[in-house]
Amino acid sequence: MTQKQPDAPNLKIQKCAHLPAMHRERRPEVAMLVCPGVTLLDILGPQTVLAPSCNIHLVWKNTHLIETDSGVVLKPALSFSECPHDLDVLLVGGCPLDIFQDAETLQFLADQGSRAKYVTSVCSGSLVLGAAGLLQGYRATSHWSMLKALRLFGATPVEARVVTDRNRVSGGGVTAGIDFGLEVLSQLLGEEIARLTQLAMEYDPAPPFDSGSPKKAGPALAQKVHDWMGPEYAERMAGALAEAAKSMNTSSS
Amino acid sequence: MTQKQPDAPNLKIQKCAHLPAMHRERRPEVAMLVCPGVTLLDILGPQTVLAPSCNIHLVWKNTHLIETDSGVVLKPALSFSECPHDLDVLLVGGCPLDIFQDAETLQFLADQGSRAKYVTSVCSGSLVLGAAGLLQGYRATSHWSMLKALRLFGATPVEARVVTDRNRVSGGGVTAGIDFGLEVLSQLLGEEIARLTQLAMEYDPAPPFDSGSPKKAGPALAQKVHDWMGPEYAERMAGALAEAAKSMNTSSS
Repeated sequence: MTQKQPDAPNLKIQKCAHLPAMHRERRPEVAMLVCPGVTLLDILGPQTVLAPSCNIHLVWKNTHLIETDSGVVLKPALSFSECPHDLDVLLVGGCPLDIFQDAETLQFLADQGSRAKYVTSVCSGSLVLGAAGLLQGYRATSHWSMLKALRLFGATPVEARVVTDRNRVSGGGVTAGIDFGLEVLSQLLGEEIARLTQLAMEYDPAPPFDSGSPKKAGPALAQKVHDWMGPEYAERMAGALAEAAKSMNTSSS
Repeated sequence: MTQKQPDAPNLKIQKCAHLPAMHRERRPEVAMLVCPGVTLLDILGPQTVLAPSCNIHLVWKNTHLIETDSGVVLKPALSFSECPHDLDVLLVGGCPLDIFQDAETLQFLADQGSRAKYVTSVCSGSLVLGAAGLLQGYRATSHWSMLKALRLFGATPVEARVVTDRNRVSGGGVTAGIDFGLEVLSQLLGEEIARLTQLAMEYDPAPPFDSGSPKKAGPALAQKVHDWMGPEYAERMAGALAEAAKSMNTSSS
């Protein structure tokens, strides 16, 4: 005989009062893909920008707890099947390489992306959109270390902090998600609310060093970023992307 | 008869490969306070900066799931009693007002702060450090809207992105946590690793608008941030802070 188990104590969610709404008319519906190993700040930067004005849903295949790349454990809010059908914004951030062979996720993105008002990415999330067939013929950006790979998916790489091409909006690596979020917010709801949000978040950046791009940091430091990721990482990534590009061309031909 | 309940399915953590280590010698031990309603980006900005080089622990009274100010649900890693005894960094971000009357949490911070190598904050977390008696006679900063309140706790408010006074390091509002994180990382492990991290995170900010401080945004937009928080918020905050300052002076006299 099966009985409903009482919730385990640490499954209890300690609720809080959310931030006040900055926008009280129809709130845009935003779905952000999360997965085990997601680059957390790719998602949380835009999430923080948009949360006071939009309904944001962190979505994954299921709502079990996931661990992110930096070790934080969080709970997706909705499974793919629970995600709203008609999104204002679909957002993908950086994910581990297995996403490129994950047919269920790529199909979810292709389907949602076919209807979403804005199809968007931060960091290497643009490559995931590409693998889902959503960037063919579009200009887009990505993390500096993976920018050129966009060509594999029929996209034109652009070296910029945020790139808008029709309804595709992409941001550069990790921290670009904040600039990206403000840009998307202004496209969704106008410039004043974006400026208000910027002030509320005190987004008046003053990096203590000037090493935020390969041009500014120089080739020695750029090489060290590659070394940090591991000597085999670039090769594994190239393999995963080539495989994804092949699958995409097969399925769309 | 009590039986151990099997774990509920959505308590399962879907693990992932973490980011590679950027620093392989002794990794600094960092505890970041989280609580229901914590301002998530205050924590996740520095967490992203420090995660490849440090051991980071998100700590709270218990490890039940918590909801943050922007609606994300996450799991604290350690309870106060499980937190390492001798920290390299103690970090507090913005928390709801009830933190100022929360004796258990203030006592935890006062105790850890008495030994931590660096006692740090982002956004209004400096006021929480103040309420724990940790900023008397120190210069510090905070979110622009709450900066002057530091005086209540014997601290000297400084309008700056990041303020270092001996082993106290404080950052401004929300997004300042990234600048703060890079500064703390360079103090902990040197400038090169901070530059490397900045490049890996592509932290080359380019806000689409220039409204990140009250001076830049102007008084009308600053008033709108106050209005957004609600007409009674400033008053409730003033009351909570005055009460906390009174308790601190009573207990330390």
